[in-house]
Amino acid sequence: MPGCRISVWNPDGPPSGAEAALVWKPPAELFKHETGLTTLFNLGAGVDALLKMPEIPPQVRIVRLEDAGMAVQMAEYALYALLRVSRDFEAFDHAQARQHWDTREGSRQADWPVGVLGLGQVGARVAQTLAEFGYPVAGWSRSPRDIPGVESFAGEAALPAFLARTRFLVNVLPLTPDTIGILNRDTLSQLLPHAHLVNVGRGEHLVEDDLVQMLEEGEIDGATLDVFHTEPLPKDHAFWRDARVHVTPHIAARTLRDESIRQIAGKVEQLRRGEAITGVVDRSRGY
Amino acid sequence: MPGCRISVWNPDGPPSGAEAALVWKPPAELFKHETGLTTLFNLGAGVDALLKMPEIPPQVRIVRLEDAGMAVQMAEYALYALLRVSRDFEAFDHAQARQHWDTREGSRQADWPVGVLGLGQVGARVAQTLAEFGYPVAGWSRSPRDIPGVESFAGEAALPAFLARTRFLVNVLPLTPDTIGILNRDTLSQLLPHAHLVNVGRGEHLVEDDLVQMLEEGEIDGATLDVFHTEPLPKDHAFWRDARVHVTPHIAARTLRDESIRQIAGKVEQLRRGEAITGVVDRSRGY
Repeated sequence: MPGCRISVWNPDGPPSGAEAALVWKPPAELFKHETGLTTLFNLGAGVDALLKMPEIPPQVRIVRLEDAGMAVQMAEYALYALLRVSRDFEAFDHAQARQHWDTREGSRQADWPVGVLGLGQVGARVAQTLAEFGYPVAGWSRSPRDIPGVESFAGEAALPAFLARTRFLVNVLPLTPDTIGILNRDTLSQLLPHAHLVNVGRGEHLVEDDLVQMLEEGEIDGATLDVFHTEPLPKDHAFWRDARVHVTPHIAARTLRDESIRQIAGKVEQLRRGEAITGVVDRSRGY
Repeated sequence: MPGCRISVWNPDGPPSGAEAALVWKPPAELFKHETGLTTLFNLGAGVDALLKMPEIPPQVRIVRLEDAGMAVQMAEYALYALLRVSRDFEAFDHAQARQHWDTREGSRQADWPVGVLGLGQVGARVAQTLAEFGYPVAGWSRSPRDIPGVESFAGEAALPAFLARTRFLVNVLPLTPDTIGILNRDTLSQLLPHAHLVNVGRGEHLVEDDLVQMLEEGEIDGATLDVFHTEPLPKDHAFWRDARVHVTPHIAARTLRDESIRQIAGKVEQLRRGEAITGVVDRSRGY
């Protein structure tokens, strides 16, 4: 990037005078030290950790990573989790351990109504991909969205109807004060029977004890979880040991280096030309 | 279907005089008994078993089931098998058994060049679906095919170049004298290192002993197999006990009743109106 000076932050040296910083979970000292910052590029889609930092001056623009290869990874993750149950792959793994040729009747795609919580760039891609495979898909978001093949439910009032037609629930919401704990006994018990939960949002979306209890009581069939209240997931957590829960180590969508560099470099150029950029966080909304 | 008389074949009664029969692995007696048959609708895509029956008079038209919901099922199957290795889901299952938060580096889609053997209706859908997810996809077929995002290799002479750029090989070929045993030590050893084989064609496409030996010698990483020389797969077969081989009981694409009925009924109507129909088997070609 000719015309740009790029440096690694040095807390022990003089301030660099940087106008923009690329950050992931930055320490509070950064903002006391580099007082010339006007823009923060977050190296991920979720900005919930940044928004909890009172040290970031209100005039600093926070920009989240948009897609950058993450949406397709989320679609892969959700589809894999869906096929594992809808196409009985898990059952066939168990059958193989017994050398058993399992001639069970297969289910139909119509037996697996999918619901996607959150229809931003990532959620829209997840919903559309699953719909293209033929599953009945609905999405829930703050305001109505028009996505081909995806039934739209919008706002708090529509949540019960959305849950009541959903068997396979995928959460890709951003974490905000409104969405903390949205996956709890009350909401999960409104799903269709034999439901499965996928959480690729944030650990704090899920009331973990509620899920453990519902699994114990047979009120939900299983879950595929990529994010947790505490990461790494503690060794003694019940999720590790429940065969109906699939644990992955926060890998549903990795930040892809090349795509991220290209996107941020493009936005820096736009800002230098005085143009508007997308992905700027609305702090009052929380994402 | 008003105007049609539909009956179940009764080998002990008088011939029904049927002009068309819907069959799956019919006994030879059918053709001695029902001599008025002009059309056979096979209740599956693969007609290799029918073509081995000398009892079927040469003038009888054999019609295979086209797609009828099978292509998308095959795409699901291939994608699931691909994601299991490319996205490390298998590794995460093993890590979970040890309560291990596995922070391995993920692979990139570019690390998984996919090759699809056979680009008929099913193969084309499989290839296009995997390409839409961003994997580098090539297909091999008798004659060149133009599928968006899919590199086309055609004919015997192009097979080595196709294999040499392929790490994840999916076989969806029809079984013909030309394709029997096409998955063997010679062809599989031409794949890229750390290759994975998916066979959803027919068991006879694969020289099973060659694969067992290559797995033993570490010359191939794994396989996902839905079809076998002998089905059900015998209890003592090596495939059952190898953790790198995933066995499914010939379920990659089930014949869907409603779609099949609709398709065959439509073709019967076309024939009655004297129109040409698609899906008629070229017996000299074998599919």
